[in-house]
Amino acid sequence: MKALVFQGTGAMSWTDVPDARLIDPTDVVVRVDTTTICGTDLHILEGDVPAVIPGRVLGHEAVGVITEVGSAVTSLAIGDRVLVPAITSCGKCGPCKTAMPSHCASVGGIGWIFGHLIDGTQAEYVRVPYAETSVHVLPDAVANEQAIFLADILPTGFEIGVQNGHVQPGDTVVVVGVGPVGLASIRTAGLYGAATVVAVDLSEARLKRSLSFGADETINSGTEDVRARVLELTNGLGAHVVVEAVGIPATFELCTTLVRPGGRIANVGVHGKPVDLHLEDLWINNITITTGLVNGTTIPTLLDLLANGKLDAGAFSTHSFGLDQMIDAYDVFAHADSHDALKVTISR
Amino acid sequence: MKALVFQGTGAMSWTDVPDARLIDPTDVVVRVDTTTICGTDLHILEGDVPAVIPGRVLGHEAVGVITEVGSAVTSLAIGDRVLVPAITSCGKCGPCKTAMPSHCASVGGIGWIFGHLIDGTQAEYVRVPYAETSVHVLPDAVANEQAIFLADILPTGFEIGVQNGHVQPGDTVVVVGVGPVGLASIRTAGLYGAATVVAVDLSEARLKRSLSFGADETINSGTEDVRARVLELTNGLGAHVVVEAVGIPATFELCTTLVRPGGRIANVGVHGKPVDLHLEDLWINNITITTGLVNGTTIPTLLDLLANGKLDAGAFSTHSFGLDQMIDAYDVFAHADSHDALKVTISR
Repeated sequence: MKALVFQGTGAMSWTDVPDARLIDPTDVVVRVDTTTICGTDLHILEGDVPAVIPGRVLGHEAVGVITEVGSAVTSLAIGDRVLVPAITSCGKCGPCKTAMPSHCASVGGIGWIFGHLIDGTQAEYVRVPYAETSVHVLPDAVANEQAIFLADILPTGFEIGVQNGHVQPGDTVVVVGVGPVGLASIRTAGLYGAATVVAVDLSEARLKRSLSFGADETINSGTEDVRARVLELTNGLGAHVVVEAVGIPATFELCTTLVRPGGRIANVGVHGKPVDLHLEDLWINNITITTGLVNGTTIPTLLDLLANGKLDAGAFSTHSFGLDQMIDAYDVFAHADSHDALKVTISR
Repeated sequence: MKALVFQGTGAMSWTDVPDARLIDPTDVVVRVDTTTICGTDLHILEGDVPAVIPGRVLGHEAVGVITEVGSAVTSLAIGDRVLVPAITSCGKCGPCKTAMPSHCASVGGIGWIFGHLIDGTQAEYVRVPYAETSVHVLPDAVANEQAIFLADILPTGFEIGVQNGHVQPGDTVVVVGVGPVGLASIRTAGLYGAATVVAVDLSEARLKRSLSFGADETINSGTEDVRARVLELTNGLGAHVVVEAVGIPATFELCTTLVRPGGRIANVGVHGKPVDLHLEDLWINNITITTGLVNGTTIPTLLDLLANGKLDAGAFSTHSFGLDQMIDAYDVFAHADSHDALKVTISR
């Protein structure tokens, strides 16, 4: 079969690899009909994730049809159309039993293994371990092009941004960084009744797009005093919830200046460096800071919302490609701003 | 009347000051029968709290009897025995209405004003603003020497350590720093069913004392590998909850290495410097960090527990003094380790 193979820092190819096949009795094999590319895949290509070795098939998001089932699988069948999410869940370890498959012990303590520790989804077929406790059979009402964004981006913005931030009715929610994951928080903040959603970014194009995802206000952090604008929007108090969706020290520290006493900072960004936490100011402020990798435990909820037309996930995709155009898709996604791209959809 | 007056960095005196008197219609005046000294008072003497000006009467904890009531006060009467807590609450601003008097807007945004922005409780009498929404009438079953520790230390350990840490039945709770406030967290962690409470400190004497407050295990951070011991006690997972009760970068950073994925760090320590937050490791760990100044909203609950013999607060006091021995009391409290002291009780 063909797959997108990591060839070491800066190098990849769409090339022949051995067919995906069953290994454990709890596996299934899925024919990949739709996949996408994540910012994490770009980090891997930059050499930032040393656990990914050359030869690894990348990708951790897929929608497709089951073509083989392992001998222990009873609730899935060949022909089922399923969502393969970013997180693999054994269902039986301590973290999985407490709704935290992001730290599934059976797969090594971090539930993200596709395109990381095992071959991933940017391929014609993918082997899916612990299939029954990991994949979601898709309702007919949900198209592949919607479902694919429930593999990672939407539940990440919802669980790690909105839910960890405990967004409540009436809240002012500031999202710092409105790339795909920031937009996923913006799109889902209304599910908990946020009154005002504020998008903060350096890019006017991204800020403009955030309005169509549900932002009520935008602040350009390159030209405006973000703290002054947030205080102006909140009677001088600061935001109830601030979502960090960039992953660098400057934006994290900005977030800590935007939150009101009693407020919450939900870190979604993937960080590569320590940040200064100004506890000399913050110890007294009754704030909460959360971090996290997506669990995917809200995927059934998000699927219901998609199926009932209460959520639109398709808007994340600005560009579509065929599987054999994978390298072109990477090129567009890696230079998203110059292509006015957000997420790409790659389909058989 | 006599009072303990801050005379500038390093200087104080027990001296004559004008009598405490009613100013606003919502005030009462309380005759101070019992007071104590807080670590914060020592910080003030060291010049660390510039808002405290020379001439200020110190102290923010008292039990006493009402001697005068303002014209707007209807639910308190002369002769009532009351607890005067560290936090003043107007009852009508946004933060007070949402159970966060720690940030009472009517008194300037920080509810701690006694011995800070107005004259405090280390005196023969104290003026108490917003009395009806701030003080607690004491049940007969609760002695002054118990009640005094509900003014600050016990609700701080309970609210900012145990409740912010969301201690749950079965949890392993590690308390780093077992001075008075760390012991307050240890004493109250059992109220939420903690299975194992672990005390961490440099002092063998403090660790020994922590056992009588409810610690199940002790770790001397000067001689033992704290992380290795915590992992050993938790099947290699780390603690569910870690309470930081020191307030320096090294102890905060230690706490972030002791918590399991999905766990919670409750910062109780008063910090004077920024800390390094290692988001490059922690972003993926689904942890929660909280900070806070006590609200005192649990004081009625703690009073019920005291009155019913389910909590012992008197054990915090190791030394007793008369009001006119205030300077001696400071001396013992400031050199607590050499006196084997914990908290001091100062009574009329």
